[in-house]
Amino acid sequence: MRTVGVVGAGQLARMMAQAAIPLDVRIVLLADNADDAAAQVIRDVQIGSPGDFTAMKRLAESVDVVTFDHELVDVAILAKLEAAGHRVAPSSATMTLAQNKRLQRDRLSAAGFPNPQFLAADTFEEALGFAESVGWPVVVKAAQGGYDGRGVWIARNEAELRSIMSDLIDRSVPPLIEEFLRLDGEIAVLVARSADGSVAVYPPVETVQRDGICNELRVPAIGSQQMLDSAVDLAERIAMEIGMVGIMAIEFFVSEGRLLVNEVAPRPHNSGHWTIDGAQTSQFEQHLRAVLGLPLGLTELTAEQICTVNILGANNGIDPRDVLPAGLVVPGAHVHLYGKTPRPGRKLGHVTVTGSDRDVVFALASDAAAMLAGIESGDQG
Amino acid sequence: MRTVGVVGAGQLARMMAQAAIPLDVRIVLLADNADDAAAQVIRDVQIGSPGDFTAMKRLAESVDVVTFDHELVDVAILAKLEAAGHRVAPSSATMTLAQNKRLQRDRLSAAGFPNPQFLAADTFEEALGFAESVGWPVVVKAAQGGYDGRGVWIARNEAELRSIMSDLIDRSVPPLIEEFLRLDGEIAVLVARSADGSVAVYPPVETVQRDGICNELRVPAIGSQQMLDSAVDLAERIAMEIGMVGIMAIEFFVSEGRLLVNEVAPRPHNSGHWTIDGAQTSQFEQHLRAVLGLPLGLTELTAEQICTVNILGANNGIDPRDVLPAGLVVPGAHVHLYGKTPRPGRKLGHVTVTGSDRDVVFALASDAAAMLAGIESGDQG
Repeated sequence: MRTVGVVGAGQLARMMAQAAIPLDVRIVLLADNADDAAAQVIRDVQIGSPGDFTAMKRLAESVDVVTFDHELVDVAILAKLEAAGHRVAPSSATMTLAQNKRLQRDRLSAAGFPNPQFLAADTFEEALGFAESVGWPVVVKAAQGGYDGRGVWIARNEAELRSIMSDLIDRSVPPLIEEFLRLDGEIAVLVARSADGSVAVYPPVETVQRDGICNELRVPAIGSQQMLDSAVDLAERIAMEIGMVGIMAIEFFVSEGRLLVNEVAPRPHNSGHWTIDGAQTSQFEQHLRAVLGLPLGLTELTAEQICTVNILGANNGIDPRDVLPAGLVVPGAHVHLYGKTPRPGRKLGHVTVTGSDRDVVFALASDAAAMLAGIESGDQG
Repeated sequence: MRTVGVVGAGQLARMMAQAAIPLDVRIVLLADNADDAAAQVIRDVQIGSPGDFTAMKRLAESVDVVTFDHELVDVAILAKLEAAGHRVAPSSATMTLAQNKRLQRDRLSAAGFPNPQFLAADTFEEALGFAESVGWPVVVKAAQGGYDGRGVWIARNEAELRSIMSDLIDRSVPPLIEEFLRLDGEIAVLVARSADGSVAVYPPVETVQRDGICNELRVPAIGSQQMLDSAVDLAERIAMEIGMVGIMAIEFFVSEGRLLVNEVAPRPHNSGHWTIDGAQTSQFEQHLRAVLGLPLGLTELTAEQICTVNILGANNGIDPRDVLPAGLVVPGAHVHLYGKTPRPGRKLGHVTVTGSDRDVVFALASDAAAMLAGIESGDQG
C-alpha cells in the first residue's frame, strides 16, 4: 500500500485524507494535537512537532513520501531527511522558497518572471529610497511568517514606513518592500507536477480577497484569452523553475492588463478548493498523485460555472456545525467543514456551487456560506 | 458534533466515512476486524460483532443514530435498542424486510406494487405446483442470506427443482419461487427518505449484471420516459410504504415493457456508486443527511453521460493497488479502491467516467476497470 506522511493537521491535510480513501493511499499524520482538524479523520496519527527532528524522522520512516499541510517547517530538518534517502515533496529547496518572500522574489525575478518592483530592504533608509523611487504608497511585507493578510502593511508616507520598518527590524523580521499596484483583479493558477516530471494545469480561478483573506473563487476567470493563457503558461514554467513536486498555487495580480506574480504556495491551496466539486480531479487527489509519482488526472471543469465561498468565523460566536441544516438547505450547496472551533476571521469551511449561470452559483454559494457563518447574506456582500 | 454509528466495515461504510468528512460528521464504526475496509480509514473503531448485544449497545450509546453497511444483523437486537430509545435508521422493521425476500414480496405485493409471480413454497410439491402453473423454468431463491447472485438458482425441470428444494429444506433455508422473466434489462432507482419524511429520488440507472453480480452502471438509463417516470414514482412510494429512513436502492426488472420489483436494499448500494462522481450529492452523503434528519441534497446528474464499472477480483491474483498507475492513466477515470485483499469475483473497487458520449464513457470506464483487475479489456466485454 502507498503511504504518504503529512506534516501538519489543518484543513488541507484533512481534505488530503478524504482524497486518499478512494486511491487506497494510507495517510500518516504528524499533528501537534490529537484533536486537530485532520487528526479527527485519520487513523494513523503521530503526535509531534515539525521542528522536532526525531518526530520528523519517525514520520519519514513510516511512509513512502513526506508532504505538507503548511510551510511552517524547519527546512534544515527536511534537508537531513533527504540526505538520509527519504522522499520529501515538495523538496527542502522548494520549501525554502515558500517560506521566504525575499528569496521567492529574487528567484522568480532572476528567472525572468514578471514581478512587482520590489526591494529586500534591511534599513528604513533603503525602504525610503525605494518608496521615493516608485512612488507612494508602498507595500511592506514580512518576508517570513506571514499568511492570510497577516504580515502585509501599506505605508502611505514616510512616517508610516518608518514605524512599520522599525517594528519589523526590532522583531528581526526581514522586510520586503513592493510597489503598490492598482489592481484590476487577482487570479490564481493551480499546477501539479509529478515526481516523473509530467505537469497538469487547471484553468485560472478568479480570487476575491476580503481583509487580506481569500473569500471567493470564481471559475472560469473573466479576462482576455491571451491573459488567461499567459497565466497558465507562467504557472507551468514556474513549477518547473522551482522543481516543484506536488500541487502548487501561483497567485497573480492583474494590474493595468499585466500579470504579475503575487506569490507561490507549493501545496494544496485555498484558491483550489473549487476543484473538489468543480474539476475532474480535485487538487488534493492531484497532490497525492503527484507526490507518489502516479499519473496526473484531468483538470477540466465539471460545470460551466463554479463558485466557492469561504465560511469565515463571524463575531457572533456561531459554530457552523450548529447551523448546518441552514447551509445544506441551499440548493446545490456543497458544504465542506473543517472541524475547527470558531474564532472571528478563522476559515471554518467553504461552500461550492456549480451550475450554468455565474450570478446564480455566486448567489447560492454566498447564501450558504453566510447561513453557515450565522450572518445575514447581505452582511457579506 | 453529529455522530453516526455504522454496523459493518465494508466498502459502503468506507465510502460513508469519506462523505462524512466535509459534513464534519463523526463516524463510529463497529468492525469485526481492525483491518476491515472501512476500519482502515476511520479513527473511531469499536471491534465487535453485530450479533453481540453488548457491542451493539455500546455503539448505540456512543452516537446519535445507528445505521448499516450490510443487512446481516440481528433485528431483535435492533428492536431492543429502539425500545431503549436509541435511533436506528433504517428501523428494525425495515431491516427485517431487507433480510427476508419472502416478507419483502408479501409486503410489496399486498401494497399493490408490481412483483413477478411468486410463491413462498415450503415443500417441493408446492414449488412444483407453482412451476406447472407459471411454466418452466422457474427461479428459486434462498429467502434469507443470499447476495450478489449467491442464493439464486434456475430450475429448468422437475428434477432440478427437486434437487434445489431438498437442498434448501435440508439446510432449513426458506425457499421463494418466482416466475422466470424474459428480461429487456434491469434498472435501479435510488431514493433517500429523511427522518423528517422528505424524499429525494435519483434518475434511474441501467444495471448490467455479470454472473449475478452488478458489473456496470449506465446513467441516464435508456427507456421510454413513461417507464422511467414510473420507476421513480414506484421507488418513492416503496420508500414511504416501508417507512425507510436513509438511502435505499430499488432494483427493477424490465420485462416485455413492464416494470417489476426485483428487490429492495435499504442502504447505500452498488447501483448508486455512480453518484459519487456523477450526481450533485453522492448516495453516501445523502444517506448521512437522511439518517441525521438533515435537509436532502440535489440528485441531478453532473454530466450528460455517466458510466461505472466494478473492479472484480480476477483469477490472476493481481491486486488493483499494484497496478494503480495503469488505471489512473485512463483519461477521466475516477478510481475507487476498497482496501480489500483480492479474491476471484470479489468487488475490489469501481471506476466512474463522466462525459457527453455514452459509448466513450463506457469504453473508458471498462478499460480502466480491466486494467485494475489486471485483465485485457476485451476479456470483460
